[in-house]
Amino acid sequence: MNPPKKLLEILEKEDNFLILTHSTPDGDAFGSSIALKLFLKQLGKKAEVFTEFPIPFQYQFLPHIDLIKNLEHLSLENFNVLILVDCNNLSRVSYEKEIIDKIKKFKREIVIIDHHIEDSSSNEFESIKWIEPEQAATGMLIYFIIKALGKDITEEIATNLYTAIIVDTGNFQFDNTSANVLNVAGELAKAGAKPSYIYQRSFECWTDNRFNLFVKMLNTVEKISSLAIACITKEMFEQTNTSEPDTERFVEFLRILDSIKISALFRQIDKDYYKASLRSKGDIDVSKIAKKFGGGGHKNAAGYRIKASYEEAKKRLIDELNENCML
Amino acid sequence: MNPPKKLLEILEKEDNFLILTHSTPDGDAFGSSIALKLFLKQLGKKAEVFTEFPIPFQYQFLPHIDLIKNLEHLSLENFNVLILVDCNNLSRVSYEKEIIDKIKKFKREIVIIDHHIEDSSSNEFESIKWIEPEQAATGMLIYFIIKALGKDITEEIATNLYTAIIVDTGNFQFDNTSANVLNVAGELAKAGAKPSYIYQRSFECWTDNRFNLFVKMLNTVEKISSLAIACITKEMFEQTNTSEPDTERFVEFLRILDSIKISALFRQIDKDYYKASLRSKGDIDVSKIAKKFGGGGHKNAAGYRIKASYEEAKKRLIDELNENCML
Repeated sequence: MNPPKKLLEILEKEDNFLILTHSTPDGDAFGSSIALKLFLKQLGKKAEVFTEFPIPFQYQFLPHIDLIKNLEHLSLENFNVLILVDCNNLSRVSYEKEIIDKIKKFKREIVIIDHHIEDSSSNEFESIKWIEPEQAATGMLIYFIIKALGKDITEEIATNLYTAIIVDTGNFQFDNTSANVLNVAGELAKAGAKPSYIYQRSFECWTDNRFNLFVKMLNTVEKISSLAIACITKEMFEQTNTSEPDTERFVEFLRILDSIKISALFRQIDKDYYKASLRSKGDIDVSKIAKKFGGGGHKNAAGYRIKASYEEAKKRLIDELNENCML
Repeated sequence: MNPPKKLLEILEKEDNFLILTHSTPDGDAFGSSIALKLFLKQLGKKAEVFTEFPIPFQYQFLPHIDLIKNLEHLSLENFNVLILVDCNNLSRVSYEKEIIDKIKKFKREIVIIDHHIEDSSSNEFESIKWIEPEQAATGMLIYFIIKALGKDITEEIATNLYTAIIVDTGNFQFDNTSANVLNVAGELAKAGAKPSYIYQRSFECWTDNRFNLFVKMLNTVEKISSLAIACITKEMFEQTNTSEPDTERFVEFLRILDSIKISALFRQIDKDYYKASLRSKGDIDVSKIAKKFGGGGHKNAAGYRIKASYEEAKKRLIDELNENCML
């Protein structure tokens, strides 16, 4: 995997980089951004990462995450190059219009390093792009950049990149876990990343409250043919002192059932108003179903919002799945 | 990692191998045994694997698992060499005394290939040993043997060895996940092992009954300082139509709690009689605790049996952990 020459040239030539990523950053966004910053520092450059705040609990262990700055305090005049990492559209950097308008005024070099399918709908700027949707994580691309420039992977960089990779592959569970992913992970471990420690910090970090919510959710699971369906009510959130982000990966857990091909989790937003997440195994495309309800997503992971009682919402989902011969 | 010369010589010289492994075989036992058999076939040798029956559901996808024969029908006269795989003591091959007595009559060459700490207490025989407790799985040793003899890793061998490795590392979660493990996994993926498919077949294969038992268990979880403790009664097994093997990995799940350093699961065998499994994170050595109760195991995974009521068993465990300053 060879990074474009133009990209490598700009990293070598320029000396003052602004690194931005998508909103609600995940392990790949944080890990890739920090690793790139640390690498540019090695080259003797100035580089700053700005993201939304606060930094989620499970990523606070990342080496040098404390150097990340709050996007709200961004001033553009200090930078020659803007690098978008794990993101290929400026409008995804923030939900705040003011921040985006500010970034859009950046009139110098823009570089994109990403593994998401290109969404250039609102990109009104010239850029140097390296977009590889076949790669499991942007962390892989950062690794190849460092290798292409013949530099060492330090322990801090390795830990950030290893986190990026395991978060986007579900710790080597998902379809995107290739031989290449495992080999790069092996190289990062050789460079000092500690697999079980990083796994523990990124995944085994549930609060007691979150665990209590999980148990409550499991008690609601119903199985209808190859569908597992579960619900979290507002009351459950209140009883356990939790909120939406605490439900991350709950719906994936239901995949553990051999008999289940599709899992659905409804989270109550308000009376007769629910947010639904769908997950599927193999070739079942649940994004089709989500679109029918005005939502969207990928083949195996999609979602939508619905104004209805839980019983009604459940019935409509089952009907839709039946109509599409998915059950 | 170089296999002993004597071991390689015997594999090359002899032509009729009996492969045995420990009782209640797991993914490493099955995967390593089958891979070794397939490899010996490649060398033009005869080789047979005998294990306990029935083969657990989650390993039935392993290529050529159908060639494994039932230990009950073993006749020794056909073999020149006995290879113990993932096991270093004959008495661990079966719980049936008759079968062990039969195997003990094997008077030709015996070879041991294993990654468990040596337990030679009842080994009254000469053998060629390759025991590497530092290796994450016996599957790693089989890989090194095939490489040392300069042979190809076929897709079938790769799938068996990849399974061996992910089962013993918890899919790259445990402390034993080294750079070497990841690199070998990468090589096996390159040779045709399909990571997400193998993960799904080995781990996401719970029956509905097992899932129901899991939910029942979670409802019993109590947290005492950094200990999470749970119980499965005989009644729960009966209500969900499950048994002991269905509880595999339940105790590991409790590690997901950030506040938890030790997890314990008690399974009722009979009135006032329990089997306990202990798991720990990092440097906490729960095998010390298990030994106090007459059991054993490794630093992070150990177990014992106890004749007491659940309340009494729980109290004695907590007392022991407190005395050892582990809570």
